[in-house]
Amino acid sequence: MAERFVLVEKALRKMLEEKKYATLRDILVTMNSSDLAGLFDNLDEKQIPLMFRLLPKELAAETFVEMEPEAQELLIRGFSDNELKEVLDELYADDAADIVEEMPANVVKRILKHADPELRSSINQILRYPENSAGSIMTTEYVSLRPTMTVGESILRIRRQGIDKETIYLCYVTGQDRTLLGLVSVRDLLLAEDDDVQIQDIMLTNLIYVTTQTDQEEVARMFSKYNFLALPVVDTEHRMVGIVTFDDAMDVMEEETTEDIELMHGMTPSEKPYMRSTPLDLFKNRIPWLMLLMVSATFTGMIITSFEDALAAQVALTSYIPMLMGTGGNSGSQTSVTVIRALSLGELKFRDLGTVLWKELRTAVICGVTLAAACFVKIWLVDRTLLGNENITVMVDLVVCVALCVTVIMAKAVGCLLPMAAKALKLDPAVMAGPFISTIVDALSLLAYFLFAQSILGL
Amino acid sequence: MAERFVLVEKALRKMLEEKKYATLRDILVTMNSSDLAGLFDNLDEKQIPLMFRLLPKELAAETFVEMEPEAQELLIRGFSDNELKEVLDELYADDAADIVEEMPANVVKRILKHADPELRSSINQILRYPENSAGSIMTTEYVSLRPTMTVGESILRIRRQGIDKETIYLCYVTGQDRTLLGLVSVRDLLLAEDDDVQIQDIMLTNLIYVTTQTDQEEVARMFSKYNFLALPVVDTEHRMVGIVTFDDAMDVMEEETTEDIELMHGMTPSEKPYMRSTPLDLFKNRIPWLMLLMVSATFTGMIITSFEDALAAQVALTSYIPMLMGTGGNSGSQTSVTVIRALSLGELKFRDLGTVLWKELRTAVICGVTLAAACFVKIWLVDRTLLGNENITVMVDLVVCVALCVTVIMAKAVGCLLPMAAKALKLDPAVMAGPFISTIVDALSLLAYFLFAQSILGL
Repeated sequence: MAERFVLVEKALRKMLEEKKYATLRDILVTMNSSDLAGLFDNLDEKQIPLMFRLLPKELAAETFVEMEPEAQELLIRGFSDNELKEVLDELYADDAADIVEEMPANVVKRILKHADPELRSSINQILRYPENSAGSIMTTEYVSLRPTMTVGESILRIRRQGIDKETIYLCYVTGQDRTLLGLVSVRDLLLAEDDDVQIQDIMLTNLIYVTTQTDQEEVARMFSKYNFLALPVVDTEHRMVGIVTFDDAMDVMEEETTEDIELMHGMTPSEKPYMRSTPLDLFKNRIPWLMLLMVSATFTGMIITSFEDALAAQVALTSYIPMLMGTGGNSGSQTSVTVIRALSLGELKFRDLGTVLWKELRTAVICGVTLAAACFVKIWLVDRTLLGNENITVMVDLVVCVALCVTVIMAKAVGCLLPMAAKALKLDPAVMAGPFISTIVDALSLLAYFLFAQSILGL
Repeated sequence: MAERFVLVEKALRKMLEEKKYATLRDILVTMNSSDLAGLFDNLDEKQIPLMFRLLPKELAAETFVEMEPEAQELLIRGFSDNELKEVLDELYADDAADIVEEMPANVVKRILKHADPELRSSINQILRYPENSAGSIMTTEYVSLRPTMTVGESILRIRRQGIDKETIYLCYVTGQDRTLLGLVSVRDLLLAEDDDVQIQDIMLTNLIYVTTQTDQEEVARMFSKYNFLALPVVDTEHRMVGIVTFDDAMDVMEEETTEDIELMHGMTPSEKPYMRSTPLDLFKNRIPWLMLLMVSATFTGMIITSFEDALAAQVALTSYIPMLMGTGGNSGSQTSVTVIRALSLGELKFRDLGTVLWKELRTAVICGVTLAAACFVKIWLVDRTLLGNENITVMVDLVVCVALCVTVIMAKAVGCLLPMAAKALKLDPAVMAGPFISTIVDALSLLAYFLFAQSILGL
């Protein structure tokens, strides 16, 4: 698919240069708005307004929503007042609010000036809610029905009002003061046996809803659990203020997962997609953890320094430091990442701590013993016999393998305890992943290694 | 929410024990099927059939679909033929196929025997497609319309047929031999100005579709790109065979992300959710990579052994090995994970290799120089002055910091090259993450470290 588009893009660009506008337009109108937006993001600055003006009104607005902020800003700055108004009239309130958030102040001012009063008040309302809350991702445009309406009247109302609503398939039944009473789907309306039945007799009343303050991650989790098309958003007085639709929930899921993955690998979450980040952006996201971990490695350095004499007496010990640290890091991150993912999918709660710890400890013992046994054989056959390292005695081999087993068990214990502790402290468990845990496990495993060496080898 | 349910669960279980079936039933019918399924998964084996029989038919089937396979199997074994038939009649074909896949052969036989012929043939059709293909996650129940039907006729058809279809909101227009011609949404039908307009005059014809063989990951990506409610699935002759709905795509997104995360941290993807995995399951998923990486650490061991004399001559060098390896591992995994995520979200293609490499190299140089400078100061102030390690000379400090800078640059280069190479070779880039890259970078950085030590310190 992607490869095909490279060719299409080339052809379209050529038509634009050759001013074959009529042919170009005929092709553009057959394309999907997401694909069109991708096309615009690759055009030169001068070509963007030219190509945009070829699109019919509705498709133009849909494409506009999907573009990168840079292209949007360029277009808005070039729009006449009339053009701007036309695009704004086609936007849903949540999309308009997303765009406003990304624009510089003078562009925002111009947008709010030309938005019709209803859209303007919706944008302002959405922007008032805290970032990452249900309020900030909802749209205020939904179909509302009254409990005493009949099915026939409701269908009529949808046909009259639906054109401006983001979804018409779920309709919310509200009472006095917009209190949320129930839910009726278009499916229920169409499949109702009688057009004269009242909405209150067929509506669903045991509703699942979120409040404007609910965290967007929780909202996304509810979508993936309940498979809804949309979720109603209510305020503290249980008044209906908006809906979140499944497509926004999907975006949140992706965004939150990317954030988790970045945190898990020692990066502060990025604001921009990778291809739009400059090396300096990447540097800023990556350097803090690298710096912190570099400095905290002072501890491992100190441990090695304080056992300098033991290492000098038995030089073979040094060569196993990377293996021990690597295995510790890998064992720990296997556990921490599994626990973090289960926590973030809601499969795991803090109250499962006992179960998790017990499961991980048993796993750690099986893994640790298996690895240690394999390592013992490998050291003897490869390092001692094949490579002929005479410094390796059975006792040295034993020290390495006992330390390895203990390292794996410690790593898995730390790997499940830290994310669970973070959860209990209401921190993001994702921070307690790989790099952080490796540093702790590195220090612990070196300590264990040298202590075993001292006591078993008598160094 | 979760905490509230713990209390509800307790109360419901008590009612069951006290045989207050009527009250229990009144409460159960107000609950959502996903929450009910969660409740069943925590019940004792004997209580499951008892509680299940209290549910009204439709809710019972919805709940059944959401349960864990263990509870489903238990129920099916306990069902009378009639009960089984009743539940099966309420299932959508894709859900039924999912259940059949998880059951042992004798249960499958019983299911297929009691499914009506249409459902049976759908299940068989879905199970014929390769695992992880669009065909295996689609449902065969959708609303199809003819191009010559009018809007009014179409609405009538939906009202007559809709009850058995997973979604009625998107209707597919098919011609001779079920060839896919176009798409009409219920929204278009309801908002059409005239009931006598023919479908072919309002249908969307530039359709986005997948084939039965399309990988489910690609399907999920298309949902998140295009925000569809459903995607049509066609066979090689462009005949319509089914649809994939957004909720299934969401499940695939979650599943594929978990798989990526597991692969990225040296685990083979798990078949079961974490809480249902035994320590032995976890062991089997985790030991292969641990074993492989333990053995491949032989190389780092060999490098250290061959520079034993240099280390003996300048003992301070040993204490910086963990810091170098740790920083290399962290730098490499930051890059590889970022690249892998961008590849899996479709933000990045193989043809972007040049851009990515150039971006990463510049980032690596800024990170490497900054870290090396900070490290130089830290070693001098902390390790030499504060901790009074007299073995550390300016030249030793210099060797460590030059090696550190080179390590960061190598790590970031390897971290972006390997996942891109995997992509080009049609392997899963996620395998080329942390553990794998750390092992390569460990060896490279130790080599660089000792070579610098030899040439700068003349060891």
